Amino acid sequence: MSKFSFPILTAEEAAALINDGATVGFSGFTPAGAAKVVPSAMAKRAAELHSAGKPWRIGVITGASTGASLDGALASADAIAWRTPYQSNDVLRKSINSGRTVYFDMHLSQLQPWLRSGFLGKIDWAVIEVCDIEADGSVVLTTSVGAANTLARLAGKVILELNTKHPTFLRGLHDIYEPADPPARGPIPLVNVRDRIGLTVVKLDPARIAGVVLNDADDEVKGFDETTDVTRAIGANVARFLAAERKAGRLPDGLPFQSGVGNIANAVIAAMAQNQELPAFDLYSEVIQDGVVSLIEQGRINFASGTSLTVSPGVLRRVFADWANYKDKLVLRPQEISNSPELVRRLGIIAINTALELDIGGNVNSTHVLGRQMMNGIGGSGDFTRNAHLSIYTCPSIQKNGAISTIVPFVSHLDHSEHSVQVVATEHGVADLRGKDPHGRAQAIIENCVDPQYRDLLHAYVKSCGETHAFCNPDKSFIFHQAFQRHKDMRKAAELL
Amino acid sequence: MSKFSFPILTAEEAAALINDGATVGFSGFTPAGAAKVVPSAMAKRAAELHSAGKPWRIGVITGASTGASLDGALASADAIAWRTPYQSNDVLRKSINSGRTVYFDMHLSQLQPWLRSGFLGKIDWAVIEVCDIEADGSVVLTTSVGAANTLARLAGKVILELNTKHPTFLRGLHDIYEPADPPARGPIPLVNVRDRIGLTVVKLDPARIAGVVLNDADDEVKGFDETTDVTRAIGANVARFLAAERKAGRLPDGLPFQSGVGNIANAVIAAMAQNQELPAFDLYSEVIQDGVVSLIEQGRINFASGTSLTVSPGVLRRVFADWANYKDKLVLRPQEISNSPELVRRLGIIAINTALELDIGGNVNSTHVLGRQMMNGIGGSGDFTRNAHLSIYTCPSIQKNGAISTIVPFVSHLDHSEHSVQVVATEHGVADLRGKDPHGRAQAIIENCVDPQYRDLLHAYVKSCGETHAFCNPDKSFIFHQAFQRHKDMRKAAELL
Repeated sequence: MSKFSFPILTAEEAAALINDGATVGFSGFTPAGAAKVVPSAMAKRAAELHSAGKPWRIGVITGASTGASLDGALASADAIAWRTPYQSNDVLRKSINSGRTVYFDMHLSQLQPWLRSGFLGKIDWAVIEVCDIEADGSVVLTTSVGAANTLARLAGKVILELNTKHPTFLRGLHDIYEPADPPARGPIPLVNVRDRIGLTVVKLDPARIAGVVLNDADDEVKGFDETTDVTRAIGANVARFLAAERKAGRLPDGLPFQSGVGNIANAVIAAMAQNQELPAFDLYSEVIQDGVVSLIEQGRINFASGTSLTVSPGVLRRVFADWANYKDKLVLRPQEISNSPELVRRLGIIAINTALELDIGGNVNSTHVLGRQMMNGIGGSGDFTRNAHLSIYTCPSIQKNGAISTIVPFVSHLDHSEHSVQVVATEHGVADLRGKDPHGRAQAIIENCVDPQYRDLLHAYVKSCGETHAFCNPDKSFIFHQAFQRHKDMRKAAELL
Repeated sequence: MSKFSFPILTAEEAAALINDGATVGFSGFTPAGAAKVVPSAMAKRAAELHSAGKPWRIGVITGASTGASLDGALASADAIAWRTPYQSNDVLRKSINSGRTVYFDMHLSQLQPWLRSGFLGKIDWAVIEVCDIEADGSVVLTTSVGAANTLARLAGKVILELNTKHPTFLRGLHDIYEPADPPARGPIPLVNVRDRIGLTVVKLDPARIAGVVLNDADDEVKGFDETTDVTRAIGANVARFLAAERKAGRLPDGLPFQSGVGNIANAVIAAMAQNQELPAFDLYSEVIQDGVVSLIEQGRINFASGTSLTVSPGVLRRVFADWANYKDKLVLRPQEISNSPELVRRLGIIAINTALELDIGGNVNSTHVLGRQMMNGIGGSGDFTRNAHLSIYTCPSIQKNGAISTIVPFVSHLDHSEHSVQVVATEHGVADLRGKDPHGRAQAIIENCVDPQYRDLLHAYVKSCGETHAFCNPDKSFIFHQAFQRHKDMRKAAELL
């Protein structure tokens, strides 16, 4: 049990320490392990100050997205002046898209090096959720690592949220390794998904611990939707493709998988587990979701390495209740390690991510709706896809009953260029883009992946480009988006051809 | 001297061995070290066969671009069915852009892993330039490594071009390291630019060496243009920025530099060398050009690691004449090592590359003119920029006397997203994009980097996007390109606003 002499503070006392204009780093990668009671108290304080005509807005750095008590509460109080590196909260998204909050989108593996390099300025405070604290300042994190170790180490002062809901036996779940910075950096000594290369605790300078706030709130993780015919078909197509690659000798056994977050990713992992031509596999990924826990139980996933255990409260209780079984099958690492380009290429990861929008050249938009409104952020998708042994992008071919084709002539924002996208899968089929030029890619994507009602339109767009290598027609590239803006239906693009 | 018993063939005899439809890997990364006499003889044979109504077209894989005797001759004979991973030849470019040659653009660090994974099919033949051959099949490469070691190892049969122009004392210039493939790969054991981790020779199975063709041709490397006021101003701006970063403590001494190929890159390296606030530095780069040799002579570059020594014949003779001085200051590595994401991030490289086109969001087009015509290819730019400690893109603000603004509302092809571009420099100034959202990036780029005659136009474009996070206006994104297509002058975009 915790034996420490740091002052116990109320959330309100802690929040009162932090001044307008501060840069604050919070633990949390997804709602898992996110600070909760202190940011909520900060939001309350901000609202009160604002009512009194006083300013209180801060810079917020986390591992990735967080929960309602952090991004949600602070954004609702208009207390976030700037934010990096990722978010997924409705209220904050509005603040970003209206220009009220400055949001800097970045590859998640780059956050910790950038913090150390001083590219994002000085961190005044860190607020870190922990499940155990020692007198020497060593702390045990909870359900995520993210960037918490670096934020806590670099911050001027640290507030610890001691969450008593999380058992202290989580000590050992984390593998905290922080590399030296160039020019003094050596190889990251991880060669197997299961390797442990660091400490089980984050070691903090006790003199910088301003206090401890008690907390017993669950992680604000929502469960995922049930699979649908479309997501099951996407999953089955990916699994069938992978089984064929294995048969052709291009997919050695033992390569770990990375899977994005969300309903499609869950369906793909489930389909891979169901496909008996694929052996049980390891994950070297970012976020460990509910579905992974079930597949560990079924013996289809052998081991999962991530930076967060983002499971719903019921599933988390199941894991805790059977901890003897899980503790050797899970590890959480800092995001610069879970998402490390060095390790992704060394391990030969098969990366499976979801596109918001995709074009016939094989380019992916992961972030911006109609090229304008930030959805969440690029997250770790670029860390994995760029360096993967094989990078697969999935999406449903249509949305809104066909009024939107996910596959367009030209993406309205580009996060992953053609060079990072080897395979595209929708519910209709799979396009293998390796070795193909833009003509070959467009043919494969249109014929295998696009919804039939959009195929002729896209062929007509290709034709409109004339004799060319790649398909940019400045007069027509955005006819799908223009049609949607004018008629709420991309099928009307025919009128603009 | 060479002591071997492999058959000596004429170039014509060697060329006659290779059948229509073959996949052929050639040595060469830039014209340096490229096969010369055999591809020329192949081109002659193709032309003869074509005259007789017979087919002869092959797939061509190299390290990167090559010389006139390879891409030029084969493309002129319409003998290249498909090509990867990079090229820069006029005739081949036409064949690609007319759709006659299938061209697959890829990150150069990925070529060797992809060859080993079988993603590009079987390699029937390799034609490799060497300067020394031993009886056991060990060979010494010449002025480049590129992918030659992997191409030669994987090919069904190998033809060696023994170039007697290159002295055998080049043994020791090369550091040939080929990593194991996942899941058996460990860390690449390089921690310093100077480290040697491999062999000085490529070891080939003697049974697969079909013959040796003699050759004494120079590398077909052209010198670069003299610097101009514009390139000197760009270089000075980059150097001043770097000196300020160093002063601010964000640029530790000892981080190596990577520099792209071309006149601007040469001017930037020269300006860095002239700036006395910057210490002498190391290069960990791809292509070692003429300018680097001069700066080694001046003591401003201490060491240069690359994959090719692409210097003009006169400079190469200077280097050979003073080899005792140069041999400890140069090393050539396979392109999967020179461009390795693992090593780029470990070493903390400062990457300086040139944009063909750049937009106000900070996105870079490195490849396609007006989004349609392939120029050369993405090359190694993505390998370096994505993983660099700091990634700088340079370009002249205008071209064709102002009829083209290099900086546009929206790039017509995107190779490097905003996430990979931290600093932009033109002759007008520098935009530091770190931590800025799209509004901040657009302001910094327009005010600091855009030519004054285009600033109001770009501000007006931003305004046309309305309240938004990012600047995609489907009706207006390509007004610069449309104006150029219609009037050969982007300034006429005002009419389309």
